[in-house]
Amino acid sequence: MVRVEVKLKKGHFDPEGDVTTKSLRDLGFPVSGVRVSKVYTVELEVNDKERAMSLAREMCRKLLANPTKDDFFIEVLAGEGGVN
Amino acid sequence: MVRVEVKLKKGHFDPEGDVTTKSLRDLGFPVSGVRVSKVYTVELEVNDKERAMSLAREMCRKLLANPTKDDFFIEVLAGEGGVN
Repeated sequence: MVRVEVKLKKGHFDPEGDVTTKSLRDLGFPVSGVRVSKVYTVELEVNDKERAMSLAREMCRKLLANPTKDDFFIEVLAGEGGVN
Repeated sequence: MVRVEVKLKKGHFDPEGDVTTKSLRDLGFPVSGVRVSKVYTVELEVNDKERAMSLAREMCRKLLANPTKDDFFIEVLAGEGGVN
């Protein structure tokens, strides 16, 4: 199992974060900014951690992240290279 | 600054995760399932960690999470009760 977090690079406009900031402020919360990112928890049919990390990197490059605007962070979850 | 992760409770249908699973499999990745969650990184104008945690819980209940289908996890980021 791998956990992939995809977040906008600094300086990129985050409309969902801006709307969330406004909504929270309208509700009275003392919030000055919100950034939104996404986490993919992926069950991989591999049992090797290095292989899981390498596949996760490739998944980010090919599908999960946009190299122009996103950064990504991969974590192979402890004790599990895969779940099958 | 607080980090709030909102994820679907177990058993709830995750269409975005299912589409991601299919896309990854179509690309040849050995993936058996994907769950998608969201992370809000919130800049709070408070300097007290307990207060930040309590506000974050309230934000989840009022806006960020749907109590019927979501679980949420809050982390007050180290060294910062707030950023202002």
